[in-house]
Amino acid sequence: MTFPVIGMVGGGQLARMTHEAGIPLGIRFKLLSDTPQDSAAQVVGDVVVGDYRDLDTLREFARGCDVITFDHEHVPTEHLRALEADGIPVRPGPDALVHAQDKGVMRARLDAIGVPCPRHRIVSDPQDVAAFAAEGDGFPVVLKTVRGGYDGKGVWVVGSVEEAADPFKAGVPVLAEEKVDFVRELAANVVRSPHGQAVAYPVVESRQVNGVCDTVIAPAPDLDEGLALEASEMALNIAKELGVVGHLAVELFQTRDGRILVNELAMRPHNSGHWSMDGAVTSQFANHVRAVLDLPLGDPRPRAKWTVMVNVLGGDFPDMYSAYLHCMARDPQLKIHMYGKDVKPGRKVGHVNTYGDDLDDVLERARHAAGYLRGTITE
Amino acid sequence: MTFPVIGMVGGGQLARMTHEAGIPLGIRFKLLSDTPQDSAAQVVGDVVVGDYRDLDTLREFARGCDVITFDHEHVPTEHLRALEADGIPVRPGPDALVHAQDKGVMRARLDAIGVPCPRHRIVSDPQDVAAFAAEGDGFPVVLKTVRGGYDGKGVWVVGSVEEAADPFKAGVPVLAEEKVDFVRELAANVVRSPHGQAVAYPVVESRQVNGVCDTVIAPAPDLDEGLALEASEMALNIAKELGVVGHLAVELFQTRDGRILVNELAMRPHNSGHWSMDGAVTSQFANHVRAVLDLPLGDPRPRAKWTVMVNVLGGDFPDMYSAYLHCMARDPQLKIHMYGKDVKPGRKVGHVNTYGDDLDDVLERARHAAGYLRGTITE
Repeated sequence: MTFPVIGMVGGGQLARMTHEAGIPLGIRFKLLSDTPQDSAAQVVGDVVVGDYRDLDTLREFARGCDVITFDHEHVPTEHLRALEADGIPVRPGPDALVHAQDKGVMRARLDAIGVPCPRHRIVSDPQDVAAFAAEGDGFPVVLKTVRGGYDGKGVWVVGSVEEAADPFKAGVPVLAEEKVDFVRELAANVVRSPHGQAVAYPVVESRQVNGVCDTVIAPAPDLDEGLALEASEMALNIAKELGVVGHLAVELFQTRDGRILVNELAMRPHNSGHWSMDGAVTSQFANHVRAVLDLPLGDPRPRAKWTVMVNVLGGDFPDMYSAYLHCMARDPQLKIHMYGKDVKPGRKVGHVNTYGDDLDDVLERARHAAGYLRGTITE
Repeated sequence: MTFPVIGMVGGGQLARMTHEAGIPLGIRFKLLSDTPQDSAAQVVGDVVVGDYRDLDTLREFARGCDVITFDHEHVPTEHLRALEADGIPVRPGPDALVHAQDKGVMRARLDAIGVPCPRHRIVSDPQDVAAFAAEGDGFPVVLKTVRGGYDGKGVWVVGSVEEAADPFKAGVPVLAEEKVDFVRELAANVVRSPHGQAVAYPVVESRQVNGVCDTVIAPAPDLDEGLALEASEMALNIAKELGVVGHLAVELFQTRDGRILVNELAMRPHNSGHWSMDGAVTSQFANHVRAVLDLPLGDPRPRAKWTVMVNVLGGDFPDMYSAYLHCMARDPQLKIHMYGKDVKPGRKVGHVNTYGDDLDDVLERARHAAGYLRGTITE
C-alpha cells in the first residue's frame, strides 16, 4: 500500500498526540526530536534525534517524508523555504507560519484584512511605551517580544514607564498592546486543507492561571450565538487569508462591551483543542493529520453537551502514576492524557477530559482529577 | 515518574491498537514482534524482533517489563510458567490462557462449572465421529483441532463419515461438536483485573462471512434483556472461574429455541470489541491495559445508541489509501482503523466504525466504507 509518511518536527506532546491520531489511519509517522526522551520520541517508532535549527539535519530528516508539519513554531522561516525549494510540502508553509512566529507581522496582517485586535504598536524604548499609553487609556500596557514567547513567557504587563525597561533587554523588537478589559478568553479552532476545505470546532472558553492555560470548556458557556458565529467566521477567514494548512487556534478576548479581539494565533494543534480528543467526533489531531495530507476533513462537532479539559501541571509530587488508582476508581469515565514528561513545578505534563450533561459536575470531575494528579488535592 | 512498562508478545493489530490506547496513560510499551514490518512494530518505539517460541528470547524480552501480555494465544504454556517462575507477572496467566489455547481443555472446564456449550466430545477417528453423530441428530458435525485454529482455520463442518478424515491428518486431538441451530452469533466481552474488579461491555451481535467476522453491531439488536443479562453474567462468571486477567471475549450462539451456548473464548482484545474504540466510554484496549496493570477499570458503556464495526478485508485492489478520499468525503463521521498490513485477499487489514441513532443508516455507512476500501463497491 502507498500510505504517506508525515514528518513532524519537534518531539513534544503535540507530536505525541498527533502520532496517536495517525495510527488508526495507517499513516507512517517520522519524528525529528531534540532528544530520545522527548514526549513523542518515547512512543514513535521512527525517530531522528537532531537539531531543527540546522538546515542539513532538516533536509536529511525530510528525505522520504511526503509532508512536513510541526509540533512547535520555532523552525526558522528560511529553512522552511529551503525545504519547499527542495520540493517537500511544508504545512503550514512559511508564508502562513510567520504569522504565528512573529507577533508584529501577525498584527500588521490582521489589521490589513480587517480583523479586530487590541490597539497595538511596535515600540522602541520605554519613552515610546509611555507615548503609546498616553494615546489610549494610559498604563497598564502589555509588552510582548515579537518572537519567542509562549505560555506567559515574553509577555509583561507594565504599570509605568519605569517598569517598561525589561522587555527591551533581549534586543528583540517589542510590541505594545492595550491591556484589554476582557470578561473572559475564548478560542476559535479551525482546520484547513490545501484544497481549501475548512471545518470549525465549537468556540471554547479558555481559563488561564498565571498566563498558562488551565481549563477549557467546550462549548463556551452562555456565549451569544451571534458572537460565536462571528468568532468562527473570523478564524475561518484568518485561515483562508493567511493560507494556513492544518490546525489554527485563534485565541480571543471577549470584551466587557461585547466585542471579540484576537489575542494570539497558533498554527498547530493547540491546548484549547485538547478537549476534542474525547469530546468531538474528530479530534484536532486527527483533523490536522487529514489536513496536511489534503484528505477530506472529519466532523468537528461535539459528542457531548459539555466537555471540559483541565491541564495537569507538575507539582511537588513526582509520582503521578500512583494517583491513577484514586482518580480512576473515583471516576470511571475520566479520560487521562499524560505526556511521559518528568514532573517540574508548573510544567504541563498532561491533561484530563471529562464530558456529560451537567457542566458543574463535568467541571468538578476534571478539576478534582487534575488536582489529585498534581498533588494539590489529597482526598 | 515511575510509570510501568507493558511487554506485549506479538506484533499484530491488537498490539498496535493496545499501544495506541496506552499512549494517553503514559504507559511504556515494549513489543516482541516476529518482524520489524509487523502491524504494531511500525508504530511502537521499543521493538524487539524475535521468536516467541524461544524461551531465551522471551526471557530477554521480559527483562525490564513490569507485566507481560499478549497479542495472540500461541505462546507455549511452559514458557509462560517459566516467566512466572522468574517473577514476571503474566496476564492472563498460563492457567487461564490454556482455556483459550486448547478447545478440549476449555470444553471440559466449562462443563465443570456448568456453562452451557454445544454437545461435544474428543474424537479419535472418523468412526468415532459417526458414533458421536448417531448419539445426537446425526450429521453434519463440526470438527475442530483443539489447538491452532482461528478465523475458520482448523474448523470443518462434515456431512458424512467419508468427509471426516481431513481433521485427523494433523495428528492434533480433534473435538467433535454438534452443529448448533443458531439464529445468530453474539459476543459477551468482559474485562477483569487481578484484584477481581470486572466490567461487562454490552452484548453484541457478530456476523461472520466464510468463518471470518464481518460485522459487529453494538448492542445486539432486539436482544431479550434477560438473555443479554444471562450472557454478561456467564462471561463474568467464566472470567472469574478461569482466573482471567485482561479482556475476555466469549463468542456465543443464540439458538432457535432461545438459549445461548458458548462457541469460543479469546483472552485478549477481540474483533467483536473493536466497536468500543469509538463507541464506548472506555475501549477494550484501554481497559485491557488498565486490567493487566491492576488499575481500576473504565466505564464500558456505549456512547451512542448504535455502533457498527465492519472489517476491511484485503481484495484485489492493493491501494486502499486512495479510497480515503471518497470514504472521508462521503461520511465525515466515519472512523477508519487501518493496521498497516499489506493487502492479501481475505486478510483483515483494518476496520471501520460508525455510530448514530438510526441502525440502518449506521450499518449502511460502515458497509459502504468497508466495501469501498476493499474495492467491492466502486461508487
